[in-house]
Amino acid sequence: MRIEQGSTHEAVRRHNLSVVLRQLHLGGDLSRSELAVRTELNRSTIKALVHQLGGLGLVAEGPSDLRGTPGRPSPMVGVQRKRLAVLAVEIAVDSVAVATVGLGGHVHDRRRVERPDDRSEPAEIVGMVRALAAELIRPDRPIIGIGVAIVGIVRGDDGFVHVAPNLGWTAVPFGDVVARGLRPLVNSDDAPVFVANEGDLGVLAEHTRGAARGYDDVLYVSGEVGIGGGAIVGGQRLTGASGYAVEVGHLPVNPQGSRCGCGGRGCWETEAGQRRLLHLAGVPDSDAGPAAFAGVVAAARAGEQRARQAVEEVGRWLGIGLTGLINVFNPERVLLGGMYARAFDILEPVVVNVLRERALTPSPAEIVPAALGSDAALIGAAELALAPLLEHPDTGLNGRVSLTDQPTG
Amino acid sequence: MRIEQGSTHEAVRRHNLSVVLRQLHLGGDLSRSELAVRTELNRSTIKALVHQLGGLGLVAEGPSDLRGTPGRPSPMVGVQRKRLAVLAVEIAVDSVAVATVGLGGHVHDRRRVERPDDRSEPAEIVGMVRALAAELIRPDRPIIGIGVAIVGIVRGDDGFVHVAPNLGWTAVPFGDVVARGLRPLVNSDDAPVFVANEGDLGVLAEHTRGAARGYDDVLYVSGEVGIGGGAIVGGQRLTGASGYAVEVGHLPVNPQGSRCGCGGRGCWETEAGQRRLLHLAGVPDSDAGPAAFAGVVAAARAGEQRARQAVEEVGRWLGIGLTGLINVFNPERVLLGGMYARAFDILEPVVVNVLRERALTPSPAEIVPAALGSDAALIGAAELALAPLLEHPDTGLNGRVSLTDQPTG
Repeated sequence: MRIEQGSTHEAVRRHNLSVVLRQLHLGGDLSRSELAVRTELNRSTIKALVHQLGGLGLVAEGPSDLRGTPGRPSPMVGVQRKRLAVLAVEIAVDSVAVATVGLGGHVHDRRRVERPDDRSEPAEIVGMVRALAAELIRPDRPIIGIGVAIVGIVRGDDGFVHVAPNLGWTAVPFGDVVARGLRPLVNSDDAPVFVANEGDLGVLAEHTRGAARGYDDVLYVSGEVGIGGGAIVGGQRLTGASGYAVEVGHLPVNPQGSRCGCGGRGCWETEAGQRRLLHLAGVPDSDAGPAAFAGVVAAARAGEQRARQAVEEVGRWLGIGLTGLINVFNPERVLLGGMYARAFDILEPVVVNVLRERALTPSPAEIVPAALGSDAALIGAAELALAPLLEHPDTGLNGRVSLTDQPTG
Repeated sequence: MRIEQGSTHEAVRRHNLSVVLRQLHLGGDLSRSELAVRTELNRSTIKALVHQLGGLGLVAEGPSDLRGTPGRPSPMVGVQRKRLAVLAVEIAVDSVAVATVGLGGHVHDRRRVERPDDRSEPAEIVGMVRALAAELIRPDRPIIGIGVAIVGIVRGDDGFVHVAPNLGWTAVPFGDVVARGLRPLVNSDDAPVFVANEGDLGVLAEHTRGAARGYDDVLYVSGEVGIGGGAIVGGQRLTGASGYAVEVGHLPVNPQGSRCGCGGRGCWETEAGQRRLLHLAGVPDSDAGPAAFAGVVAAARAGEQRARQAVEEVGRWLGIGLTGLINVFNPERVLLGGMYARAFDILEPVVVNVLRERALTPSPAEIVPAALGSDAALIGAAELALAPLLEHPDTGLNGRVSLTDQPTG
């Protein structure tokens, strides 16, 4: 609820319903007494809320937890993992992935394919997604929403992609393209479609189920060809006014640096991105790609000097950009994802050194590798699509789907 | 309330009490019907909450609003502006200011003096503050808290100043120094003391009563010798994990730039701060100061070429840093304060040009001058000290002060 507005008893009941469902979604199965402790609500309130969530088809009670708790045994409660699903989609530079995901972040099924061409049209990409999704959708598990992670700058409201340089897209109403292409498949004329930047969804995923869990102030920076990012501030994902926040790839770090596709010069991704690293390591442009990167890192680990220097030079620029972002966000944790996670052992000491030289305060953030690897954006896309149901368990489905007459899953 | 925890009816009542007091604090006198509209609470709830706030000595009802509203006339309600005060303090590089401020942001009285020496000890500074404050404090207006804005990097919990380069301080437990020095003066052993960075309090003030009012995503950048900043994200002040967020002065923007006092090179404030501007304009270091700055800006306006180029070059670096920060925050509005506000007419076109060249999205933020001038930090310090009372009108004073047996102010 917004701080400027008053609240009502009805709003409290709905807030508490959401809190209980979210605890189970994030925390796994819990006894009713554990729920009472975590939510600071009393047992009879918990009992009523669990009953209501059960009636909605969202949770089920199991046998009591008998693990030596004092007093009466307390029934275990868990989400219904398989009665509904969201369709999670990731559109990366070199692959497309689709998953069906239920409450609890339970992945029912997934597919990922390499993309043959990095200049595909939006409708072609959605066609690939549709073909993959068709294999995953089951009639007994209604799809309640569609979440899409994409390597581009996306308006939060409607999924309009302003620019996706690594896909070659400009001004694509991608939310509409997805809705047209996928809604028929999921048998819904109004399944909500959410599109967001993959860095923003990466940090959402890491905050929900990865290395940022339990941290309220987190910076996530993921490097491949470009550099993506996301931030959690005060426990919430930072979106900015229109959903463009934490576009860190184009931070100006070196006015004497190389030209960038964005029109600037010396953007962070021109200095600390994968192309720079491969170039420094002497890999010809025609050989660039994940395999070449893995080769350079292996050579660096084996002590090959040019490879080592290439990784370390990129690490130095990574550290310079992180210095600024740590000054801006004062995070507890910084998560490095993508190629930065894959070369973490070499990069981390270089980064820490730069931060130590330039840090303003004696408590710089802890630098850790991201935990979810290449699945982060997909997991984040699922969380984005599940959010309305978690926020409003009793109305989030908006009458589109009835779960209560279905078999228990 | 935190999203993870359940809520109770008692919490709702207290939340609503806070909402009503905050509406009056920020919005000035309002009729009870206007309060009902703004808070989305019904009239009888508003009546009860206003009655309770009246009993606490925090608001008073006046004559009805008869300006043609339909239905029964609705009594006007306003905060008690003079029954209590906070002590607001600003410690700037070249001056110290103190004000007493009541509910509604009503400034009862204020004093500002130039500082003779920019390397004063913390206790000396607090001595200056005490002498000024002694002239302002009145026995009939209890001081309920002390808020301090300072040009340094401050831990939010306890006001520990890690470093204040422009004061020559390192590792000063300044919250303690303030408490020891000022609590006896305000006749309280436990008046809460809050210390924060002046950029953070500048944005708080502009958001509450200045050019950022009504905006949920705001970046504030204020330049003098150093560059300070603050941000509002999703309607809340960004503090970071420990209170150090938005330390923008040391963003690395130019690896080939000048050495900075922080140990880095080419920090934003070495490229876009006042010293650089005066240096480019040919002002000798011995003449540096606000008067010299005003002279250069006047000369630039009059068409003197070297002065004009100096201001524009600083504007270019201001724009480069802002490009990065706009990519990070995606604000609706960017407020330029301090010397950037005083030279806004010359700087703004230069900045807009840089942003246009480098912006990633077609909706760059609106760039406006800050509205509160040199009072911003002081007004923010008052808001910081008033916050506990606004958050918990019935317990925020923690029994320290009773207002109900005092005359109406």
